[in-house]
Amino acid sequence: MTGTFARHTIVTMIRYVDQVAIAVKNLDEKVKIYESLLLQSAGSIEEVRSEKVKLAMFQVGETKIELLEGIGPDSPIHKFIEKRGEGVHHMALKVDDMDRAINMYKEKGFTFIEPAPRVGAEGSKVAFIHPKSTGGVLIELVE
Amino acid sequence: MTGTFARHTIVTMIRYVDQVAIAVKNLDEKVKIYESLLLQSAGSIEEVRSEKVKLAMFQVGETKIELLEGIGPDSPIHKFIEKRGEGVHHMALKVDDMDRAINMYKEKGFTFIEPAPRVGAEGSKVAFIHPKSTGGVLIELVE
Repeated sequence: MTGTFARHTIVTMIRYVDQVAIAVKNLDEKVKIYESLLLQSAGSIEEVRSEKVKLAMFQVGETKIELLEGIGPDSPIHKFIEKRGEGVHHMALKVDDMDRAINMYKEKGFTFIEPAPRVGAEGSKVAFIHPKSTGGVLIELVE
Repeated sequence: MTGTFARHTIVTMIRYVDQVAIAVKNLDEKVKIYESLLLQSAGSIEEVRSEKVKLAMFQVGETKIELLEGIGPDSPIHKFIEKRGEGVHHMALKVDDMDRAINMYKEKGFTFIEPAPRVGAEGSKVAFIHPKSTGGVLIELVE
């Protein structure tokens, strides 16, 4: 990849940090703390059964700060907290074109958790890059 | 605090997520991965001896994604990685008025790691809220 192409891709591909998602043990308790910290109400608690989480969301500039509590004993959020304690579970990057982004990252040697993007909140396409290929941080791409 | 005052503070106090800082074992190795992931060059590596870290920085929209490697055996970054593994070490929130923000958060019951803000990169004022009062995430305020 030439320098010129790389610079072109910067402009077209990653816009901003779309989410910082924090794994928590007790959502209701942490919502109160983050409402106080972020000076806003979280609004409603959403349950995403397919992902085994319930979540609360705060918009801070371009970025949504999400609090995630696991649902059920086999939720990945519980596993994360057992291993590492409460803290940032993943970070999402906003991309313009998911299919193009996935192809580019695969060519670069990044590994995806699932072979194809799936439909996330509000019909957006999402895909997760495995933390083994990013040095410990689970990265979500969001279109 | 009344609802009206709370709404007023939202507008004036927290602007955006200024940084997501990731603790890593080997900065050079991770810089290559993040240059590939974030489609940009990290530029120069900075050493901040007072904080016992060296760091690389990427600007993604409003947010700087920082990679931090500890310097010396007693760096807090090493302690973090020993306990939790590589991952997000802290998140910084951009505030308009540091003194006002600190007073407000102290009144709300948040604990700061140091009693007064200190001078960070480029003369900015910074202060850290203890992770015990935010549910596991170290929060930095940046003016």
